[in-house]
Amino acid sequence: MSLIPPRTPSGTLELLPRDQMVFQHMLDVIRRGYERFGFVQVETPVFELKDIILTKSGGETEKQVYFVQSTGAIQQGHAPDMALRFDLTVPLARYVAQHERELAFPFRRYQIQRAYRGERPQKGRMREFYQADIDVIGKDKLDPAYDAELPAIIVQIFTELGIGDFTIHFSNRKILLGLLDAWGVSEGEVQKLVLREIDKLDKIGEEKVRAAMVALGLTDDVAGKVLKLVALKGDKEAMLAALRALKVDHPVFQEGLAEITMMVTSLRALGVPEARTRINLAIARGLDYYTGTVYETLIDAHPEIGSVCSGGRYENLAGLYTKSKLPGVGLSIGASRLYDQLSSLELLPPVPHTTQILITQLEPALAADYLALAATLRCAGFTVENYLEPAKLDKQFKYADKAGMPLAILFGATEVAAGTVLVKVLAKKEQREVRRADLAATLRALLTV
Amino acid sequence: MSLIPPRTPSGTLELLPRDQMVFQHMLDVIRRGYERFGFVQVETPVFELKDIILTKSGGETEKQVYFVQSTGAIQQGHAPDMALRFDLTVPLARYVAQHERELAFPFRRYQIQRAYRGERPQKGRMREFYQADIDVIGKDKLDPAYDAELPAIIVQIFTELGIGDFTIHFSNRKILLGLLDAWGVSEGEVQKLVLREIDKLDKIGEEKVRAAMVALGLTDDVAGKVLKLVALKGDKEAMLAALRALKVDHPVFQEGLAEITMMVTSLRALGVPEARTRINLAIARGLDYYTGTVYETLIDAHPEIGSVCSGGRYENLAGLYTKSKLPGVGLSIGASRLYDQLSSLELLPPVPHTTQILITQLEPALAADYLALAATLRCAGFTVENYLEPAKLDKQFKYADKAGMPLAILFGATEVAAGTVLVKVLAKKEQREVRRADLAATLRALLTV
Repeated sequence: MSLIPPRTPSGTLELLPRDQMVFQHMLDVIRRGYERFGFVQVETPVFELKDIILTKSGGETEKQVYFVQSTGAIQQGHAPDMALRFDLTVPLARYVAQHERELAFPFRRYQIQRAYRGERPQKGRMREFYQADIDVIGKDKLDPAYDAELPAIIVQIFTELGIGDFTIHFSNRKILLGLLDAWGVSEGEVQKLVLREIDKLDKIGEEKVRAAMVALGLTDDVAGKVLKLVALKGDKEAMLAALRALKVDHPVFQEGLAEITMMVTSLRALGVPEARTRINLAIARGLDYYTGTVYETLIDAHPEIGSVCSGGRYENLAGLYTKSKLPGVGLSIGASRLYDQLSSLELLPPVPHTTQILITQLEPALAADYLALAATLRCAGFTVENYLEPAKLDKQFKYADKAGMPLAILFGATEVAAGTVLVKVLAKKEQREVRRADLAATLRALLTV
Repeated sequence: MSLIPPRTPSGTLELLPRDQMVFQHMLDVIRRGYERFGFVQVETPVFELKDIILTKSGGETEKQVYFVQSTGAIQQGHAPDMALRFDLTVPLARYVAQHERELAFPFRRYQIQRAYRGERPQKGRMREFYQADIDVIGKDKLDPAYDAELPAIIVQIFTELGIGDFTIHFSNRKILLGLLDAWGVSEGEVQKLVLREIDKLDKIGEEKVRAAMVALGLTDDVAGKVLKLVALKGDKEAMLAALRALKVDHPVFQEGLAEITMMVTSLRALGVPEARTRINLAIARGLDYYTGTVYETLIDAHPEIGSVCSGGRYENLAGLYTKSKLPGVGLSIGASRLYDQLSSLELLPPVPHTTQILITQLEPALAADYLALAATLRCAGFTVENYLEPAKLDKQFKYADKAGMPLAILFGATEVAAGTVLVKVLAKKEQREVRRADLAATLRALLTV
């Protein structure tokens, strides 16, 4: 019989155990960070009913959906009635609308699951990828104070991940929308298209954005004022002062200014280091979905990666599924993409060993003793593996080293008589004799080096 | 615009936050248990290529596969080339064959992910469900000592889950296969069919199994001896003695006897309590896939649930994908089903609160102080939520209670001046004044009650 070549579908991220450990550590840090701020976990089925999932945007997303169908349904010629989720926002909207009566609002949820896009795989585009989303959903209203809490959480998480300096850039769409209105650009659609052009600044440059704005009907003067504004740089106080100095008495602008001012105050109260966040009026986000605060996160030394954590404030999460008004604010970490980029840049620090100690098999007659020592050490909180095959010691050490375990223990009848064991530090090829009574303390010390 | 009714596809398990917390705790305990014994995590893509996934059995499984296809592929009339995994064994086989050169053998992996079956949903059958599998894979050979380690891990996990008394029943297929051969039933196919009948004992009863064995060509005498053997009960020593007393000099039987004897010794060395495991020769497992040790796990007070953790030893994991011989032994917890059954029996103990403390909003002027206290308490290791909406205190307490938080903190200008805060134990509606300096210790004490 000929063999089937073992392989995964393209556009998926499958890791070897040592890399998986690093990736899982990232997900664990994210989860712990979310929970530390009182967010609760939601998991939704990987597939949603077709009418739930195909309502959001049509267009590009609809072309990228993966439909799911059983063998039986295909044979009977049925049209598919389920599809894999393409993000975690549609499932959140459906979940909140479905369980509205049973949830406590403001509903603070996080969701760390995979999403799917049926696109041609290419660099940076995956067909299956993890997202780690965090959102607060209010009923009827949601205080702007929440807008500061989310970046505070992300700062803690990224700091704990140890991926180097990063900056959360934020703005408030109301500032630019209000200014455009005050400067005579009163058509709502045009205002949104202007913001979409500004979102492209990094990619296409100032001159093309200026031309596009003029093509949208802005005067040279207004286009110039917009470009000057979004190019503003400075610390938060300077930025707020510059905005106040515009002295524009437009209610939408004033609302945006009040919200962003409150955000600066709250970020400080939450102890977020100044350098980790920055007001950047060029952050506009392409999606009309966002109505107030918007965020993007850049790794300072690698802006070329683009934003690794983005989101913002929205007016109404689930209007397609419920009459209730559900405003919210959210941030999303593209975890697979983040891992992929950071690991190819070698920016991911090493993580704690999953398995700390290998107990080798030296003398078959002592098999039961090896198992018993493992049980004792596990009770003391260590992760311990027994090598259970008869094999040369050297082979057992190599195995431990390949699997990434830092320590090995060996003992024979001589050591049993002496009440000791030998502990080997694999990286240093160093070996020492340790009394059983001191073993746990010695291991702990060796593992925290 | 008419609303789309928000709902999930049938046959899926979507939980409200408080139930999700209990379920996630179960997955966390399983994962920690697997890691404590030196197993490493593997995650595979949710879909596999069609030729990888449809080779294992044909028949029933093939009818239940969910195919995955993008909108574009459907429009172009392509046949689907990917399907959702229906278990974690096929992905494991493919993974080990694909990454053989990069893995350290014996390869000890766990995998906690969802699997999919395109079947009509009914009680106890799900279309999407979590499995938590653990396997050791050897290259060319795998010592029988590993067969004792896996149940030792499961015993630790189920004990930590606190789900009441349970028993891992185990046997070794070589015992019955050898005996049948020694008793004149020499046709391999017939031997396997006999084991498959024995596997049905609980469901169809002794007489039907006897008739089925006779129909397979067994004499009344042999059928009687088989039924007498599989009905044997007693502690491990008595069972081993009964098997030795058969004095059957058949190599396969003797191998099975030696392996099961070694397992009993190893379980003791690993400190597994006697009552948690039992030799039960009626455990045969329907799958021919298993070649030696087989396991099933019953909850003592609820045998009607059936086995909640099953598995066994197999000769060759990945013969379809590689020429290497890869024997293994594995156990699988059907986590979604286990959760579902235990929670409807109310057998799941309460789990630690994810969010411990709500800091209420009493005086808007102190907003920054509330945020700062939350940051301080998070640094001290607590999970803390700020209520950020202006709202009546009573509404804030109700919110905390609904969300399952045990403690709330409140303070106004008076308490700030006195250097205190008020801590409210929500379940008891009790409130006490605590000095800031004593706050962390008081909270810790209240949370460990």
